[in-house]
Amino acid sequence: MNKEFMLRALKLAEKAKENTDVPVGAIVVKDGEIIGEGYNKREETSDPTAHAEVVAIRQAAERLGSWRLDGCQLYVTLEPCPMCAGAIINSRIDTVVFGAYDLKAGSASKESVVDLFSLPYNHRPQVYGGICERECAEILTEFFKEKRP
Amino acid sequence: MNKEFMLRALKLAEKAKENTDVPVGAIVVKDGEIIGEGYNKREETSDPTAHAEVVAIRQAAERLGSWRLDGCQLYVTLEPCPMCAGAIINSRIDTVVFGAYDLKAGSASKESVVDLFSLPYNHRPQVYGGICERECAEILTEFFKEKRP
Repeated sequence: MNKEFMLRALKLAEKAKENTDVPVGAIVVKDGEIIGEGYNKREETSDPTAHAEVVAIRQAAERLGSWRLDGCQLYVTLEPCPMCAGAIINSRIDTVVFGAYDLKAGSASKESVVDLFSLPYNHRPQVYGGICERECAEILTEFFKEKRP
Repeated sequence: MNKEFMLRALKLAEKAKENTDVPVGAIVVKDGEIIGEGYNKREETSDPTAHAEVVAIRQAAERLGSWRLDGCQLYVTLEPCPMCAGAIINSRIDTVVFGAYDLKAGSASKESVVDLFSLPYNHRPQVYGGICERECAEILTEFFKEKRP
């Protein structure tokens, strides 16, 4: 785990704000190199699947020319929702590092709705939650504060 | 619910086989009209997120110019995995009709790994499972039989 990668994901989250998208950023790393980057583009692209993780995973798979992301780590500023946790399982990502917990839609920890990574699917990544939690939560709090004054 | 739509999804599933992709097909319907179609393209596109449901949902959202698929029904030949169940929740699809149950990765019924649609996310679609079950299961059984003789 390398906190520098989470800081990069946070920088990407900032970009989502430009299109009034909830600021979440994600990157996929292999052998210490960033091979996929994404930020939430739901509003920008009108695509309900364009969460940061899915965007980063698709980019990484395209780069590798394979849907199998064995040996990859995913860093994301917010706990994955069920769609993104499922995409992580489907792509065989080894390790997930997330920042803020998401009690309403999070699906990767016992603190949230469900921990999908503890269920008997055909792949279970290692998970580290709450990394750079304060910074990752702060950008979201600020966003919603500005949105609903 | 209209079984004709499931038969269309089954026709799409056939196309997946051409690229040695697991044969699953899906369509999104609004006001009786098909606005999104998809089949599993994981091998064809090397994209781990290119399941039939995600492909159909993205096409429907593009057609409507909105990530909100309120008032839409999704027909899919196989019970959704966690990624696809999550994409259904995120897109606010009203109704899910699926064919065969998937005991190993299914995430939309009590019979399978987990029923994500019964959990307290911010949207819960209505779900009908086991529609045209025999035909939907058969195409999968045949595929795996041919693959592993």
